[in-house]
Amino acid sequence: MGLSLSDGPSKMQQLMRYFDHNATTGLDPQVLEAMLPFLQTHWANPSSAYQFARPVKRALAEARAQVAGLLQAQPEEILFTGCGTESINTALNLAAQLGPDRRHLVLSEVEHDANRRYAQYLERQGWEVTWLGVDAQGLLRAEQVREVLRPDTAMVSIMWANNETGVLFPMQAIAEVCQQQGVLLHTDAVQAAGKVEIDLRLVPADLLSLSAHKMHAPKGVGALFVRQGTPFDSYLLGGGQEGGRRAGTQNIPGIVAMGCAAQLAQSRLLQTGCIRELRDHLELGLRKQIEGMLINGHPTQRLPNTSNMAFEGIEGEALLLQLDRVGVAASSGSACSTGSLEPSHVLRAMGLSARQALSSIRLSLGHVTTREDIDYLLEHLPSLVARLRGQTPFKPESKSIASHGPLT
Amino acid sequence: MGLSLSDGPSKMQQLMRYFDHNATTGLDPQVLEAMLPFLQTHWANPSSAYQFARPVKRALAEARAQVAGLLQAQPEEILFTGCGTESINTALNLAAQLGPDRRHLVLSEVEHDANRRYAQYLERQGWEVTWLGVDAQGLLRAEQVREVLRPDTAMVSIMWANNETGVLFPMQAIAEVCQQQGVLLHTDAVQAAGKVEIDLRLVPADLLSLSAHKMHAPKGVGALFVRQGTPFDSYLLGGGQEGGRRAGTQNIPGIVAMGCAAQLAQSRLLQTGCIRELRDHLELGLRKQIEGMLINGHPTQRLPNTSNMAFEGIEGEALLLQLDRVGVAASSGSACSTGSLEPSHVLRAMGLSARQALSSIRLSLGHVTTREDIDYLLEHLPSLVARLRGQTPFKPESKSIASHGPLT
Repeated sequence: MGLSLSDGPSKMQQLMRYFDHNATTGLDPQVLEAMLPFLQTHWANPSSAYQFARPVKRALAEARAQVAGLLQAQPEEILFTGCGTESINTALNLAAQLGPDRRHLVLSEVEHDANRRYAQYLERQGWEVTWLGVDAQGLLRAEQVREVLRPDTAMVSIMWANNETGVLFPMQAIAEVCQQQGVLLHTDAVQAAGKVEIDLRLVPADLLSLSAHKMHAPKGVGALFVRQGTPFDSYLLGGGQEGGRRAGTQNIPGIVAMGCAAQLAQSRLLQTGCIRELRDHLELGLRKQIEGMLINGHPTQRLPNTSNMAFEGIEGEALLLQLDRVGVAASSGSACSTGSLEPSHVLRAMGLSARQALSSIRLSLGHVTTREDIDYLLEHLPSLVARLRGQTPFKPESKSIASHGPLT
Repeated sequence: MGLSLSDGPSKMQQLMRYFDHNATTGLDPQVLEAMLPFLQTHWANPSSAYQFARPVKRALAEARAQVAGLLQAQPEEILFTGCGTESINTALNLAAQLGPDRRHLVLSEVEHDANRRYAQYLERQGWEVTWLGVDAQGLLRAEQVREVLRPDTAMVSIMWANNETGVLFPMQAIAEVCQQQGVLLHTDAVQAAGKVEIDLRLVPADLLSLSAHKMHAPKGVGALFVRQGTPFDSYLLGGGQEGGRRAGTQNIPGIVAMGCAAQLAQSRLLQTGCIRELRDHLELGLRKQIEGMLINGHPTQRLPNTSNMAFEGIEGEALLLQLDRVGVAASSGSACSTGSLEPSHVLRAMGLSARQALSSIRLSLGHVTTREDIDYLLEHLPSLVARLRGQTPFKPESKSIASHGPLT
């Protein structure tokens, strides 16, 4: 075959400026190297008893420890699943199994669809859901959670960081409220993991969902943290895998990859300052060149890599199309709802009008994003906005201010 | 990195005689070659709108057509899932959504745990399940299905081929019975796919489950056939992937691999005669050398690759341990329940005593199994059985009969 992993990035990757790391991320070469032996050589079923399965079992245990390490959790508190959505659905299904005395759920209005749709499904089955609003900056206060807890509350399910705006919720305070009231807390940390520190010794959440492909591991694998002592019901039913807690032959190459990626993410947490600097430089540069531009979301209580911005008088989708033409990959929010003509439920919950929400795009950076990528965007985005507004494109001097201005 | 896919099989693989293809299969080098670009280069989220996602979307469509091709189905009738278990659970969940007038299910007693456990879960929720028995050869008649159908039957869920014995059920006749009575039929074809022909133009099943890793594609991906016009409810809820029928970012490398593997499996269907010849040669050779040995399952209504045999007076687990010591990987049944000390529910349903069931092992071949592998087993297995029975090992002449005897 003669295929070699050292061939390097393709032409497409060289030409593309990728600003959609919240949608998915490229596979880290180290992650590919870690998983490849489990595609080529160690492909035994991990449930098998023979010697051939031993390296597979060992790798599964190591990956579990690596994912636990990213969260400061114990390996036996990690279940592997098929995706972040399955992890989130599994958590909510658990709430649904708590019995007739616990039929109330608490979610924020800005949760990912994997959370929202499951809760809406339970609503149709007779559960009651309290949807907590957010303020104009996308923030939610722990006090809001406390105020709505009831004796029949089965679970609070609130994301650690928002996928569209990057806004961070006060997870420690929320978890403490839930702990005090004896209510289960699930948090969707799909976007937070690897971007901000997650220490489950400090944050007493009961359940936490992760997705591998948001942190430079492949698609098709997720994890669910289940704190020791938490009541648990499987969502996928069948074989006794994952200690009887998730049926289905484990995706070993994917799990090994996720373990490796979790370890890399942990080691790269210190670098997130650089990502934040680039992101802030981008936002400042754009603000200088573009009037009628708003950053959606709190200026600091936000993931270091995410920038969601509204451009007065234009359609976000049209801008994305123009960006795509100059090789910039970005999105208007969740990739899961691409193609929907509905304004983002996240931005609407923050009080943006439908028009404002539809004028927004999301730029999300990664550790592979370079200063050159940012400069490229600073060079092209303002003129594309101007063109879409029917204005004369910006003059070179405004570009030079942005691309050589100080980082803040 | 300098890793190359042309390095060939590892030392472990060269030394190992793998007789557990019903548990999992090795990744086909062609499948790895097909999926690798989707790990390295084309890693965009398939839901994204930009150019970078186009090759990913195209590959997803192609894989869907390839999997449909294996079943003689239409591409839009194929959903990709995270594993066979998820496919099966999704089918049964559908039955559970049909409303209060349809709360009766029909399963065979020998279904895989992914089917059994979900049905048992529904039983606990108030559904009624009729469990159909099998005869001493593991067979089930379509007439048995007809006899138990009721106006409130929501679904019949019966496997195409049994994972432990390889026994084939008369799926066309069963499907026709269900069609006549207007009852949904799901069939678990995880073990049948690629081993026998599946033509859904002739077999009017409504739903059919597949797993990629049983046909030389990686773990972590499955598929569910949903015939056009079948009522459908998602099991994983969230984003609008898979036409709104299965939420969660698609495992593109896995899906591409499954598509490629489906095409290869289709092209290899003609070779299954060779696998059957090897398997029959093995059974005949062992029968000649070992007294008190029974083949569990019908002699011909059986997958060409599967041999389940009981050895009077020994424990299957002890034999497997001895086989492992001489480099033979085999199992006592479903890998999903390895470690369980319970006798197989499949063999018990066929009327074997607990002791007989516990004296059984399963040998499952693949297209990579060689005559040399069979001869190796014919050389070692009889003496291991004899030793475990406390008998003198067999003499060389009996070995030579087996390893040079005619194929039958």
